[in-house]
Amino acid sequence: MTTQHMREPTLAGIHAAAAKIAQILPETPLLPLEVHGTTIWCKAEVLQPVGAFKIRGAWHRLSDLTAAEAAKGVVGVSSGNHAQGVAWAARRLGIPAIIVMPVDAPKVKLEATAAMGAQIVTYDRPGGEDRDEAAAKVLAETGGTLVHAYADPWVIEGQGTAGLALAAQMETQAGGGPTRIVTPCGGGGLTAGLALACPQAEILPVEPEGWDDIGRSLATGTIQKVAADAPTTPCDALQTPATREINFAILKQRCPRALWVSPAEVAEAQRLAFRQLRLVVEPGGAAALAAVLAGKAPVDGRTAVMLTGGNTDAAAFAKVLAG
Amino acid sequence: MTTQHMREPTLAGIHAAAAKIAQILPETPLLPLEVHGTTIWCKAEVLQPVGAFKIRGAWHRLSDLTAAEAAKGVVGVSSGNHAQGVAWAARRLGIPAIIVMPVDAPKVKLEATAAMGAQIVTYDRPGGEDRDEAAAKVLAETGGTLVHAYADPWVIEGQGTAGLALAAQMETQAGGGPTRIVTPCGGGGLTAGLALACPQAEILPVEPEGWDDIGRSLATGTIQKVAADAPTTPCDALQTPATREINFAILKQRCPRALWVSPAEVAEAQRLAFRQLRLVVEPGGAAALAAVLAGKAPVDGRTAVMLTGGNTDAAAFAKVLAG
Repeated sequence: MTTQHMREPTLAGIHAAAAKIAQILPETPLLPLEVHGTTIWCKAEVLQPVGAFKIRGAWHRLSDLTAAEAAKGVVGVSSGNHAQGVAWAARRLGIPAIIVMPVDAPKVKLEATAAMGAQIVTYDRPGGEDRDEAAAKVLAETGGTLVHAYADPWVIEGQGTAGLALAAQMETQAGGGPTRIVTPCGGGGLTAGLALACPQAEILPVEPEGWDDIGRSLATGTIQKVAADAPTTPCDALQTPATREINFAILKQRCPRALWVSPAEVAEAQRLAFRQLRLVVEPGGAAALAAVLAGKAPVDGRTAVMLTGGNTDAAAFAKVLAG
Repeated sequence: MTTQHMREPTLAGIHAAAAKIAQILPETPLLPLEVHGTTIWCKAEVLQPVGAFKIRGAWHRLSDLTAAEAAKGVVGVSSGNHAQGVAWAARRLGIPAIIVMPVDAPKVKLEATAAMGAQIVTYDRPGGEDRDEAAAKVLAETGGTLVHAYADPWVIEGQGTAGLALAAQMETQAGGGPTRIVTPCGGGGLTAGLALACPQAEILPVEPEGWDDIGRSLATGTIQKVAADAPTTPCDALQTPATREINFAILKQRCPRALWVSPAEVAEAQRLAFRQLRLVVEPGGAAALAAVLAGKAPVDGRTAVMLTGGNTDAAAFAKVLAG
């Protein structure tokens, strides 16, 4: 497997990433929303061209590859949003991309990734195939560069640009930067990036019910895995088996705890975003809003909530609306 | 009825409105969308706090009332989006607001208007009650100021600020201002405002099938009414009986023709906005995108499309997604 670039992610790196991203992507809006009588600030990353924040980290990583690395292509592993981020950046930079995706990823994510010209290799998540093994096989064949969905300094820095942006937007719109950022959390790439970008804010990661490995890791001080018998969850974007040291080193410093939300709480948040913000938010993307709505995350007038992704099949969303 | 302020709307008035609006509302994003191999530019007015562009004209009008006028309150007539714009501005300025709404307006619009503290008076549209008569009765009782949904110079100027904004955004994002703006059209308030704001652009209004009074007015050179036996349409926001002289004077100079779209074409556009932009767009708000998708509006790389509103009931939207 290609050597991983195991430098530490830094705030300077986030600023460098932000400068590059500002050249190609207009900033996503920060939308006010009144919840329980308090205005919270929703960062609408669902409005990125690929429908998720993942485009930030992918662009920072791919645009920093050397010409020799770029020629051998990149390999991403993802249930769909990181996949689309890598595919989007690769197409724009003319880099071949292979994406390893679970065979049961939402159809809308599989189709959009393929439409951007990436080659897709599927693995059977329910059947127990290991996604890292599937990726290692592709990497051995191509000599390409793995763009990990969260355990990569560039990816962490790229995702952190969302934190820089929301802090600047809150200065203008809310009269001051964020005191707290509530964010959906899978592997911890975005969470670590936000923590680095916003050193003054409390960072609260939110996981799906039964997928609380980050919460247990924070409680025990060592990285814990998701239980083998974890329940099914609508939050496909947050189904990561465990965080990694590069992420956890930051999380354990900056996150006092993690929260978890039930499928019903997630659906309620999706309906609120539909009705009040006119946004399509996928289950995993609505996890942080769900925690706020359910009263699990405290709020003040300077609490930011990440709406991280909006890629969901029409039939699944219609079912949520009917609920 | 209170004397209407029958000055002409002007570009200077649009600039004055824009300066006021910039103080209270962050700009809505301009989102690129690839259609038939060409990138079009979608102005996401569904992301306004009330879910529609109507907040612009309402704010410009209400914030220019004299203290004496403000004390007597305002009266709006609307199927829901103008209602919410007026109610939002009135609450923020501490002005009493009465809104005359059709009894069959979408529930989400009735509820949101009431939630903002406006008093609602309903009239029976299918039963043939005249909305102008209903409004006249309220105005006679209160001595308040009518804030017409489109035949008002402030309202036209306020809506025109969306044109100024999108032109500036296209300079940055598309490398030049709009050559063409395709917009949903009811009474012609937004259409007239865009025409004034963007003198270099072709302005193409889009109406619902059977509600083509603007198209027939442009073809004949005189204001025509919607036929008494007009079909039902999902585009409640565009169900206006006829335009007025203050609007038509601009439209007949600047719009070569109008387009119309079917309910099926509108639903297709709503589904595309769901899937590609992660936006909830109501039927009337999707009319211009529908015309582009159906190949009825020509496009180039500098065509702007207005997504004007996103207030739709969950059940109605779920049905569209299932279609």
